[in-house]
Amino acid sequence: MNKIIGVGLGLIGGSMLLSLRRFYPKAKFLGQDIHAKHLNQAIDLGIINHKAKDVDYKDADLVIVSIPVDVAPKVIDELLYRVGSKTLVIDTGSTKAKLCKYLENHPKRDQYMATHPIAGTEFSGPQAAISELFDHKTMIVCEVEKTTLKLQQSGITCFEKMQMKIRYMNPLAHNKHMAYVSHLSHISSFMLGKTVVDKEENERNIFDLAGSGFESTVRLAKSNPQTWTPIFKQNKTFVLEALSEYIHNLKNFETALKQDNFEQLYKDMGKTNIVKDILKGIHV
Amino acid sequence: MNKIIGVGLGLIGGSMLLSLRRFYPKAKFLGQDIHAKHLNQAIDLGIINHKAKDVDYKDADLVIVSIPVDVAPKVIDELLYRVGSKTLVIDTGSTKAKLCKYLENHPKRDQYMATHPIAGTEFSGPQAAISELFDHKTMIVCEVEKTTLKLQQSGITCFEKMQMKIRYMNPLAHNKHMAYVSHLSHISSFMLGKTVVDKEENERNIFDLAGSGFESTVRLAKSNPQTWTPIFKQNKTFVLEALSEYIHNLKNFETALKQDNFEQLYKDMGKTNIVKDILKGIHV
Repeated sequence: MNKIIGVGLGLIGGSMLLSLRRFYPKAKFLGQDIHAKHLNQAIDLGIINHKAKDVDYKDADLVIVSIPVDVAPKVIDELLYRVGSKTLVIDTGSTKAKLCKYLENHPKRDQYMATHPIAGTEFSGPQAAISELFDHKTMIVCEVEKTTLKLQQSGITCFEKMQMKIRYMNPLAHNKHMAYVSHLSHISSFMLGKTVVDKEENERNIFDLAGSGFESTVRLAKSNPQTWTPIFKQNKTFVLEALSEYIHNLKNFETALKQDNFEQLYKDMGKTNIVKDILKGIHV
Repeated sequence: MNKIIGVGLGLIGGSMLLSLRRFYPKAKFLGQDIHAKHLNQAIDLGIINHKAKDVDYKDADLVIVSIPVDVAPKVIDELLYRVGSKTLVIDTGSTKAKLCKYLENHPKRDQYMATHPIAGTEFSGPQAAISELFDHKTMIVCEVEKTTLKLQQSGITCFEKMQMKIRYMNPLAHNKHMAYVSHLSHISSFMLGKTVVDKEENERNIFDLAGSGFESTVRLAKSNPQTWTPIFKQNKTFVLEALSEYIHNLKNFETALKQDNFEQLYKDMGKTNIVKDILKGIHV
């Protein structure tokens, strides 16, 4: 790897580049961001050396696209035409089905690999980027067979350097799973935040009375709506499915509580306790 | 303080005693727990010196009751008869209205102070106890005027040593606020856990694909149902109110998503983002 370009230099893109800098210290790291401020911050923070020019795409080894999922399809489509024949283009978006569909007949589809690193924080922008963000985390790769073998290997090598666990999935399965283990968490957190904020007009009350439990469940409500609105839009079907099951479970809890059916509540919570064991293995 | 007794030596009771040991190194720390195993663990872990005998209550300076909220009223009622005239009895329960009501005509009501430290973790038992758990956290004190001045001061001195922020509230206001900033978080988390566990029959999928966002929102689903069932029972009215508003907000989100009203979703999430600023001050 001699030249790596980041398109989108926020939390995810910035962290990807910072991470790779550790393993390719001699490579040139360039970048682009629609926000001039982010571009400058990325240079100041040492995420990139300088802005990528059009010509840089011709001999780049790797282009990493980390931009909102609604604009990604078109940007990647255009990028593929611009890059040289040895460049691998990957993206880090949280939805994969529409993107893969959009690109399926692209003449340079075999230079693209659809990837999604399962890591993040509730913060955003280049200043939130962390070099270790993806270490030991899961990298989902979709439709790997559509990428030429050599470029597959080049991408996988990068992820292995970060000691990521690689999981191959089809785009629909990816989207469905993400609706449950990621997108629903964000809705649950945003609406929990809304419920409390609406209720407690006096911020001082929340501030004083909320403990670490509230902080933990509401953490994702700090996430960027610009990132998340298009994710919910693109994954609408599966998100609605997960959300409707969640509401159903909450209503069952409500009914049991209304009817003083505490045995039921106890049983349901006890069963859910198995997340203890499941989550032990997650590196957070 | 020469003698401090803990009744209930789990996460909260154990942490209270460990915390106080730092400030009263010469005091005797004794305890009782309905589970023989917890009692022995508390001795082994240095939380208490030995089991409290009946006679110990006569000259104890402080008795801290940290047991499930459904059994607390009767236990505290009986304890007050057993303690000497200079003993302060406090409890750490997450609900306060029924307890205060139950004790309002107790002849020794003035030796009891209704308190609720706003801190915890998702773990339980003496092994989960941490000496710093309450440092800099909020301590809610209800109906403080019903406790004799001298014993008020003795309790407050303990909390001040832990650098806790003391907030005085009436029991109903306490219960209502807790329904929003604590109890609802637990329900939201338990039901999120249930939704995902029910869906993903294959645990391996959750294990691999869940990131720190899911882990954060579902953390409280590891909490002990034995602690939480009676809390929901005792705070039923306010919990139902908070839960119904939460479900209402989730349904509005669902409707907006169904109708492709992404502007609404964006606006709602943006408004909720103010939790960023509110939560900055919470020590987690």
